[in-house]
Amino acid sequence: MTDSLHQHPSKPRSNDEKQAVVNRLKRIEGQVRGIQKMIDEDRYCVDILVQISAINAALKKVGFSITERHIKHCVSDAILSGEGDQTIEELMDVMKQFSK
Amino acid sequence: MTDSLHQHPSKPRSNDEKQAVVNRLKRIEGQVRGIQKMIDEDRYCVDILVQISAINAALKKVGFSITERHIKHCVSDAILSGEGDQTIEELMDVMKQFSK
Amino acid sequence: MTDSLHQHPSKPRSNDEKQAVVNRLKRIEGQVRGIQKMIDEDRYCVDILVQISAINAALKKVGFSITERHIKHCVSDAILSGEGDQTIEELMDVMKQFSK
Amino acid sequence: MTDSLHQHPSKPRSNDEKQAVVNRLKRIEGQVRGIQKMIDEDRYCVDILVQISAINAALKKVGFSITERHIKHCVSDAILSGEGDQTIEELMDVMKQFSK
Repeated sequence: MTDSLHQHPSKPRSNDEKQAVVNRLKRIEGQVRGIQKMIDEDRYCVDILVQISAINAALKKVGFSITERHIKHCVSDAILSGEGDQTIEELMDVMKQFSK
Repeated sequence: MTDSLHQHPSKPRSNDEKQAVVNRLKRIEGQVRGIQKMIDEDRYCVDILVQISAINAALKKVGFSITERHIKHCVSDAILSGEGDQTIEELMDVMKQFSK
Repeated sequence: MTDSLHQHPSKPRSNDEKQAVVNRLKRIEGQVRGIQKMIDEDRYCVDILVQISAINAALKKVGFSITERHIKHCVSDAILSGEGDQTIEELMDVMKQFSK
Repeated sequence: MTDSLHQHPSKPRSNDEKQAVVNRLKRIEGQVRGIQKMIDEDRYCVDILVQISAINAALKKVGFSITERHIKHCVSDAILSGEGDQTIEELMDVMKQFSK
């Protein structure tokens, strides 16, 4: 499945950084469970759709913060060592997928 | 939080319908947990972003199937009883939010 | 190219309606020409991207107003004559494409 | 309107590069005019929406190619001169707007 350029970010995430992202993902996980409950209680479609939009927005936010860190470390380091192009093309591919 | 037009869909979801949506949401919940693990293992940013895109796509798919059912039942019933406009405007609002 | 269900909306657009949409599209056309000028003047990439985002937003707005009219007339009429399903599925297909 | 970091890209666009982008924008301009004609001929809503989606996709493609060039030149040059952060944050802002 993965033919990414690397296995790890060029600068390891600190424990604090990890915790911050995991906390946001745990909240999103809770929101997804919340929708299961709404389905179970046969709640109104529009209310469910509003919640799904909220999750999508929250996920995008996580994605953007990961992207920003990626550019500030992995992409920057690749550029500084004269190997930016491949990393930038990899970034563009994932950005295109992300913007769908 | 909610000033939706209704509390429930105009035609209740069957148990099979509920189960099908809940199953998809459980899979999405698992994917969100998978990303937490990836963060924990300090996996490469692009691989994480690919997974986030996959979740967003899966959530949108659930959203579209809920929207389709909503139009086929709630919106249709409102139209048939001569009260379509308000329901259609409510639908448009959520579609706009959804397309962001 | 087209295997749409119809050639025309079930209720013809009035001249005022047509004019309002055409005016918005003319403004968008002007914005697209504006970007050509920015390229020609070798303007900064981010300024160009901001303009492209603005056009995309304006086009989506036109799309949503056409969608709303479509549901209020074509889809509603199909539902009232007991033939809603095919029209709703056609609508969902275009909404999916649109949300990309 | 603009408080961008720069007036021009750090590496000027060549005439060939300019021409390639302008050609794509001219085609998009033609597509926008095509929709005006469709409105004028009172064409079916869904056919118009399909065209609007096509324009949005074409615009996004132009946007992504401008973004890629921006990262390969402006952002890279900023990183190489030790001033990447501000440029990367500017890029993230426009990417967020763009993904809506």
